[in-house]
Amino acid sequence: MKDERATLIMFSGDLDKAMAAFTIANGAAGQGLEVYIYFTFWGLSLLRKETGDGELFLEKMFKRMMPVGPEQAGLSQMNFIGAGSSLLKILMDQKDSATLPELMNMAMEREIQFIACEASMEILGLKREELIDYQHLRVACVKAYLEAANGAQINLFI
Amino acid sequence: MKDERATLIMFSGDLDKAMAAFTIANGAAGQGLEVYIYFTFWGLSLLRKETGDGELFLEKMFKRMMPVGPEQAGLSQMNFIGAGSSLLKILMDQKDSATLPELMNMAMEREIQFIACEASMEILGLKREELIDYQHLRVACVKAYLEAANGAQINLFI
Amino acid sequence: MKDERATLIMFSGDLDKAMAAFTIANGAAGQGLEVYIYFTFWGLSLLRKETGDGELFLEKMFKRMMPVGPEQAGLSQMNFIGAGSSLLKILMDQKDSATLPELMNMAMEREIQFIACEASMEILGLKREELIDYQHLRVACVKAYLEAANGAQINLFI
Repeated sequence: MKDERATLIMFSGDLDKAMAAFTIANGAAGQGLEVYIYFTFWGLSLLRKETGDGELFLEKMFKRMMPVGPEQAGLSQMNFIGAGSSLLKILMDQKDSATLPELMNMAMEREIQFIACEASMEILGLKREELIDYQHLRVACVKAYLEAANGAQINLFI
Repeated sequence: MKDERATLIMFSGDLDKAMAAFTIANGAAGQGLEVYIYFTFWGLSLLRKETGDGELFLEKMFKRMMPVGPEQAGLSQMNFIGAGSSLLKILMDQKDSATLPELMNMAMEREIQFIACEASMEILGLKREELIDYQHLRVACVKAYLEAANGAQINLFI
Repeated sequence: MKDERATLIMFSGDLDKAMAAFTIANGAAGQGLEVYIYFTFWGLSLLRKETGDGELFLEKMFKRMMPVGPEQAGLSQMNFIGAGSSLLKILMDQKDSATLPELMNMAMEREIQFIACEASMEILGLKREELIDYQHLRVACVKAYLEAANGAQINLFI
């Protein structure tokens, strides 16, 4: 039997894909589904908050290239070193569209479950303290994702 | 219970991804599934037809960067400012493969349901008149997608 | 009724996406699901082995641009002409993470079903002999994918 669940794998850290993901997630939660988002690889950048350091050189290089939080996300296409991203933000602002940080806040108000991929965090050298504070965020492995996805109504890789 | 439905989110406007999407969609329709394609963000470019203008400057800039219709779609990888895309078209032509416009026509003959994402259209400044004429194309929000996806056999984000 | 199956469409040939795909596939197989991976477009590059030639000029050009096998896969983001990819490999090595070839070997030990998309192979001019030798690899069309996906617990497009 299918359970009333939806899961998204947030692999990309792109602004446009993240906006699509959170719009779907919030919509699904609004329709009464229990929603899980599994953040892996670049998707983890959406969960990063600013911190100090103390990390190894290579990790630091990699993390310096990764955006920090939803405000810094670029576009998956037509990014032009950030110009496309700024343009999209201006257009959304003119239309009073919800921004990515607003969509993420909505997701947290709706108690959408966030799972941060343990293996990706280890490879990228990210620690739990570097991620946002949110009661329903836990660090876990792909097994946790699969348990949620197996038998869910909707599963997407974004 | 699962319904005999398949849904695709057409987020990308890339030629290769669109070809994969319509091949899957046509195959699923051929196997008797009711198929829905939800066009959002760059995927909307596939539904654009040539028109005059009257739009605001920023929207115009953004739309000028977006391809118009399936003939202008680029590749997701190895695009080389269109060279990869042309090369792929030459190879497909040599093999008598169906082109993207042909695959889209097949989808319309099979009465696949097209949903154009209302919020993306608003942000990008696209109007209904700028999209292709097709009886089974409607403009709607993510709720319409979720209703189709909830309980469908196959749901993909492309 | 839902069968105990999971299917992945491996459309991308990127190192990071392929690692995510095989991690999910191996995890799902470990939880007792029957797993199918449908390799199409760039994803086919993961199945290529080194060979001689005898192919047409255009195909050769296209294939020369495509990576050969999992060792040559680049990143979907921050690739910097291979630098990001090397950096990720160094980080993974330091952490003793499984490499992509290791993840693919695991998948084959778990007898995950590989399907190579016939139409993409034809367009790209790839022949069966150019793909890796693996008992559970077969060349088939999208119909084979849809049969596995229809009624599966988890379906993802990567």
